[in-house]
Amino acid sequence: MSDRIEADYLIETPVDPAAAAAAMAGEQSSGTFVAVPGETPELRERHAARVETLDVRETVAAPSLPGGTTGERYARASVTLSWPLRNIGPDLPNLMATVAGNLFELRQFSGLRLLDIRLPEAFAVAYPGPKFGIDGTRRLSGVARGPLIGTIVKPSIGYSPEETADVVKTLCEAGVDFIKDDELQADGPNCPFDDRVRTVMRVINAQADRTGKKAMFAFNLTGEIDDMRRRHDLVRELGGTCVMASLNSVGLAGMIALARHTELPIHAHRNGWGYLTRAPLLGWDYRAWSKLWRLAGADHMHVNGLRNKFSEPDDSVIASAKSVQTPMFETKPCVAMPVFSSGQSALQPPETYRRLGNADCIYAAGGGIMAHPDGPAAGVQSLREAWDAAMAGVSAEDYARGHPALARALEKYRG
Amino acid sequence: MSDRIEADYLIETPVDPAAAAAAMAGEQSSGTFVAVPGETPELRERHAARVETLDVRETVAAPSLPGGTTGERYARASVTLSWPLRNIGPDLPNLMATVAGNLFELRQFSGLRLLDIRLPEAFAVAYPGPKFGIDGTRRLSGVARGPLIGTIVKPSIGYSPEETADVVKTLCEAGVDFIKDDELQADGPNCPFDDRVRTVMRVINAQADRTGKKAMFAFNLTGEIDDMRRRHDLVRELGGTCVMASLNSVGLAGMIALARHTELPIHAHRNGWGYLTRAPLLGWDYRAWSKLWRLAGADHMHVNGLRNKFSEPDDSVIASAKSVQTPMFETKPCVAMPVFSSGQSALQPPETYRRLGNADCIYAAGGGIMAHPDGPAAGVQSLREAWDAAMAGVSAEDYARGHPALARALEKYRG
Repeated sequence: MSDRIEADYLIETPVDPAAAAAAMAGEQSSGTFVAVPGETPELRERHAARVETLDVRETVAAPSLPGGTTGERYARASVTLSWPLRNIGPDLPNLMATVAGNLFELRQFSGLRLLDIRLPEAFAVAYPGPKFGIDGTRRLSGVARGPLIGTIVKPSIGYSPEETADVVKTLCEAGVDFIKDDELQADGPNCPFDDRVRTVMRVINAQADRTGKKAMFAFNLTGEIDDMRRRHDLVRELGGTCVMASLNSVGLAGMIALARHTELPIHAHRNGWGYLTRAPLLGWDYRAWSKLWRLAGADHMHVNGLRNKFSEPDDSVIASAKSVQTPMFETKPCVAMPVFSSGQSALQPPETYRRLGNADCIYAAGGGIMAHPDGPAAGVQSLREAWDAAMAGVSAEDYARGHPALARALEKYRG
Repeated sequence: MSDRIEADYLIETPVDPAAAAAAMAGEQSSGTFVAVPGETPELRERHAARVETLDVRETVAAPSLPGGTTGERYARASVTLSWPLRNIGPDLPNLMATVAGNLFELRQFSGLRLLDIRLPEAFAVAYPGPKFGIDGTRRLSGVARGPLIGTIVKPSIGYSPEETADVVKTLCEAGVDFIKDDELQADGPNCPFDDRVRTVMRVINAQADRTGKKAMFAFNLTGEIDDMRRRHDLVRELGGTCVMASLNSVGLAGMIALARHTELPIHAHRNGWGYLTRAPLLGWDYRAWSKLWRLAGADHMHVNGLRNKFSEPDDSVIASAKSVQTPMFETKPCVAMPVFSSGQSALQPPETYRRLGNADCIYAAGGGIMAHPDGPAAGVQSLREAWDAAMAGVSAEDYARGHPALARALEKYRG
């Protein structure tokens, strides 16, 4: 990777794919719909985007998206474009306009999806990246090996600060490593952020004093910049160890401001991700999208879970988790900790571990903890045992023989 | 509109639409996948989202989006949900997680699109909205009636500050009311923001001193919050009258911070909009999306143009333009000025005026100005004359008889 920004796309087009790719490159750099005198060969040489590769695949009979040019057949192709760093400099917000701006509407395309991006090292210098990542999260949570066993405060919304703290007390006593606010709960009138931090940290600090174990709680501070900074400071001051932000709510400028300020890991929530990704020939692959947020400073990135309750296939979940663990730069890997959640119980750890290849993750369950027949502590224990078994290369069935919490969980969740 | 937040959706589902709508409402408020003891009837009464209306329409044989539950047929329906304001308070970033969060992935849906939102008046109190809007833009640009005739600096990227200023000089001499940076040009090493503002404002101020007419230039200050504030101050200090931000690059927290700070109109660029909207059964309608940005403070909102060079149909363009002119609140209308652009020339004003119903817009053309056979001044003149004719209820052909710039434009652009 030299001094060029690269982006990989999947395109679908009724016109010649090479011409379509050239149109993308033109529209996203020095090109214009109408030729202008200033677009000299020298300017083009210095600033034009290049089509680096074009790999035409199958053709299909019907367009994936409406509204564009029509044709007999629609060719699908993968395309890599590149831009000189000098066009925008190492600038994340403006990178968006370059790699994901006025592209998706181009009438040459009946499909256009951003698959991946690769950035020059100058970006690694310009942005903080995750300040804590996997190692920092392990240090602050005291979990040296295996996943952080996590959960979420439910119901999503409606609890007062005191009721929230009561739930947190139960979860701490059950031995969880990690708890998060729901993304619907930030600073509502019924559960103001500051009050919630105070009541919850009282419980968590008391539990830490008693047992030496301090659960990491991700307080959802999503909001305006100055509020987020102030809320972060309150969490820090009261001994909290994590803050959470909804990426699609705060946006890149908000996330960068928070990340430059933070002295705590940022738990990055991807709610809204569905509208960016669910149409197969439009929008974003997680690999590309998550790189922006990792570089901006996300320490934990949500990736859904195996056999989840949403519409995402397992292969996609694993690809996402692996991607955020893959280094971005030599000088600054920007590795984030993947967060597995949604419909998780003691059933999925073996496959999750086998396919991810490590246990450097947050593994969150709701019903998988709270609905354990022997209570939440047994629920947490069953998840730990399921991971221990997987990491030891022992089948869950075998391991369950000496571990009743796991045994009961397998029985229960296999239904 | 009382104290509830409302959102309209288009859904497609293989399950009973009423059950699917109830699942949306549950997931986005107090509901949980696994019942928890804390979700009491009282809590539900206070915090649960409600299905206000459900209007089942046609069924289709194939799902619009993959990955969800499958069935024999997929019913389409429009659904209105509502939430009590007390869940989040008047909070724009957190509104996102509520109306457009973990919804689009729900496996009950093979399609889910957010069509519109309606907010309690408390939101109007909490956010700035457009500080200038149509009236303020007219005042600062000196254009009392008719559209602001606008254009964009092209090539998109590659000009130095001095070259940019040269182009601006030509455009000012041609009599344009409004000029904008390309969205690819913000603060690149080849054309640093500060230098560009200095060279361009020298030209614009000199022209204003000579002629009394100061063109409004939208400087693209997209970037980190503190940079945007500082750049705004520089523009203000040098006599500039507009700043521009790419909404999908800065995000809501960035936009709100800029809008609270600004003393100039904010020209809001929607690049990237395609990935949010182009799949018909996914994502966002412009009406819903633009309301967030109007309330956050956007004075000018891009809406594409009739017979544009992208894939958007004309009906959609007009619906977008009308929507940003439709008041949001009694106490704070948040009316933004629609910006028409893309492939515009003297040909489209009659229909644009007829369908929009007014001339309160920015009407931007590139080739429609620069490629006029008698030069840019005639290009600008031809656009003014086309709008004058439309506003006077005279056909362009008739009007062209006494107006050679328009006559030549009709000849040229009709090809």
